[in-house]
Amino acid sequence: MPVEGATYREAMSRLGAAVNVITTIDERGRHGLTASAVCSVTDQPATLLVCINRSSRSRVAFRVGGPICVNTLAHAQREISVAFAGRLGMEERFEEGVWTTLATGAPVLEEALVSFDCLVSSIVEVGTHSVIFCHVQEIRLGDAAEALVYFARAYHGLSHQPG
Amino acid sequence: MPVEGATYREAMSRLGAAVNVITTIDERGRHGLTASAVCSVTDQPATLLVCINRSSRSRVAFRVGGPICVNTLAHAQREISVAFAGRLGMEERFEEGVWTTLATGAPVLEEALVSFDCLVSSIVEVGTHSVIFCHVQEIRLGDAAEALVYFARAYHGLSHQPG
Repeated sequence: MPVEGATYREAMSRLGAAVNVITTIDERGRHGLTASAVCSVTDQPATLLVCINRSSRSRVAFRVGGPICVNTLAHAQREISVAFAGRLGMEERFEEGVWTTLATGAPVLEEALVSFDCLVSSIVEVGTHSVIFCHVQEIRLGDAAEALVYFARAYHGLSHQPG
Repeated sequence: MPVEGATYREAMSRLGAAVNVITTIDERGRHGLTASAVCSVTDQPATLLVCINRSSRSRVAFRVGGPICVNTLAHAQREISVAFAGRLGMEERFEEGVWTTLATGAPVLEEALVSFDCLVSSIVEVGTHSVIFCHVQEIRLGDAAEALVYFARAYHGLSHQPG
């Protein structure tokens, strides 16, 4: 018997995860959305993956060979997570935070805990979601010491000190 | 210019993540390893993914159609993470913790924060790693209130209270 969506989402709320803003740019402008489904795949060559909903407004902007940046948020950037997860228009979202670019041209968030500037290497469609594989082209490490983590349907801070 | 492995691993250490013990069973017995590269793919149908190193001893035990359980650890289960990440033999690893089974027969950890009992739906090879897509067959929610999270190369506890 298949697991119900509500049961699965409740269970998944217990999988604590870093909060990231995933960005790109195309002929229509900048795009971005908040995502916690990000994980490392391999360091040879440096590759990560991002899962995003196919119904998200930004989905069509991510294309094989195109730019994508994974900006891992610091605890102080909770408002940026909220802006990119909500109903704001795309350019309005980018009014939160200070943005720059690295190698690929995708929007890179100043003061992020870390930014992974990538090119999309492949996309696998699974049910309602797209799994986007990303080759890392350039990395920028920020100075923040505290990460923003989402767990049990709430934001948390996680500092370098073990606890 | 490709990003160096060491730079990538340093950057990835800033992506805080839940700690999971991934298990299966085959004709040789039980297998398990610690992994933080786990994320939700979709709830229609309930599907998650796990990235594991192709050189890991357990890798060959995971097959399309076979059982796989993702046991998300509670903070009190740090020693289980260490046992399944180290040099112990497979049966020795399972001496840590109390184990049961659900629908698929894969080992399920008592007192885990949550266990996702799954069948492997497909495997995608990317560089040194395998991305294992898993259809969730049964879910077991534990009673623990505090999650085990790995961030900045150290274990941390994360409780239900936001911070």
